[in-house]
Amino acid sequence: MEPTTLNKRAVVLLSGGLDSTTVLAIAQSQGYECHALSFDYGQRHQVELQAAARIAEACQVASHRVMQMNMNAIGGSALTDNNIDVPTGGVEENTIPVTYVPARNTIFLSYALGLAEVIDADTIFIGVNAVDYSGYPDCRPEYIEAFEKMANLATKKGVEGHKIHIETPLISMTKAEIIQTGASLGVDYGLTVSCYQANDKGEACGVCDSCRLRKQGFSDAGVADPTQYYSA
Amino acid sequence: MEPTTLNKRAVVLLSGGLDSTTVLAIAQSQGYECHALSFDYGQRHQVELQAAARIAEACQVASHRVMQMNMNAIGGSALTDNNIDVPTGGVEENTIPVTYVPARNTIFLSYALGLAEVIDADTIFIGVNAVDYSGYPDCRPEYIEAFEKMANLATKKGVEGHKIHIETPLISMTKAEIIQTGASLGVDYGLTVSCYQANDKGEACGVCDSCRLRKQGFSDAGVADPTQYYSA
Repeated sequence: MEPTTLNKRAVVLLSGGLDSTTVLAIAQSQGYECHALSFDYGQRHQVELQAAARIAEACQVASHRVMQMNMNAIGGSALTDNNIDVPTGGVEENTIPVTYVPARNTIFLSYALGLAEVIDADTIFIGVNAVDYSGYPDCRPEYIEAFEKMANLATKKGVEGHKIHIETPLISMTKAEIIQTGASLGVDYGLTVSCYQANDKGEACGVCDSCRLRKQGFSDAGVADPTQYYSA
Repeated sequence: MEPTTLNKRAVVLLSGGLDSTTVLAIAQSQGYECHALSFDYGQRHQVELQAAARIAEACQVASHRVMQMNMNAIGGSALTDNNIDVPTGGVEENTIPVTYVPARNTIFLSYALGLAEVIDADTIFIGVNAVDYSGYPDCRPEYIEAFEKMANLATKKGVEGHKIHIETPLISMTKAEIIQTGASLGVDYGLTVSCYQANDKGEACGVCDSCRLRKQGFSDAGVADPTQYYSA
């Protein structure tokens, strides 16, 4: 079979955070028509989804979809509870459990695969990173390669030779490199939300693990941090 | 690393249809503690989910979860619309679109993988069949193998050597063989619903593709068909 030229349509997983927003900018800079996909799975930081919507609009993506699912049906206590308000009264370091969804990247990529099939996109972009999150097995290159192989056996598209590619442009970047890349592409990081306990306005606590990583990233990158904090 | 003995806990994908119910019976007959997982993705035949609940209870599974998701967000017109009533006034052969969810098995297996990680199950059972549905790429053994490989790279469990196995006991059986196997295990097929346009009582139309395949299966198997039809 002749190798098929990739089309320039892509599904981009967009959480509304710093990493996925940078990925979107990278994909667009490479000439992809980008279809953003976000997930409402009961995560505590719902403001991320609002950020995703703002970013999708600011970047003029071709489309933006939000998948809703009751992940708490399988996650149990490891998941954040959608019915508990996000605390805004102050900082409680290390007492807010990080939203952990088992097999999360696999589930997200599976939906992206379904969407790629529906809209005939040959490429899926995901902002996984093996540097900062090296403890997560589903952020490693060998996992991504295995998913890609499976994806091409799973779909009509893949079987017919329109190979699906999973692109992970951030996979070996440090946080500072991610920020430098995004900044050079004109990303407005003020739109993004990374904080695990952001308030209703999307302002960040500045002290949770995610905030610390992000703050350090801006500092290391030598890029001004546009994040609005509600406490220092 | 020493090979680890498989535990006897399993996630069983249970739609409420004939195939998945047979798979559950097979898994239980092999001594597995079975945790059933069903999906509410806006499929037209909601009575299938009611059937899944009845079957889960009748089989005394260890647990039964229903995942809800708005698949129509990615599926568009190819999907059935949850807001449209199931027709009960008569047969309209070939006018009811079959619920097609792109990458469906991949999405279902991904959730099963997440649940397997949460409850520490080493095995996932799925009722895919490469005989009757040979046109579906995600029903082939090579797809299942690729998913299993990916699954073991995706999860902490897999990485730590507690290998996850995807079991597909029906994959090369004919419908008649499936029914014979289930009947020999005491499956009450009267509880199952396969019809694409079953009525609110779970009675089948008898003429849609799924009904025809099922009817023929009982006939070929020489097993009495317990299906309640609302039209012949």
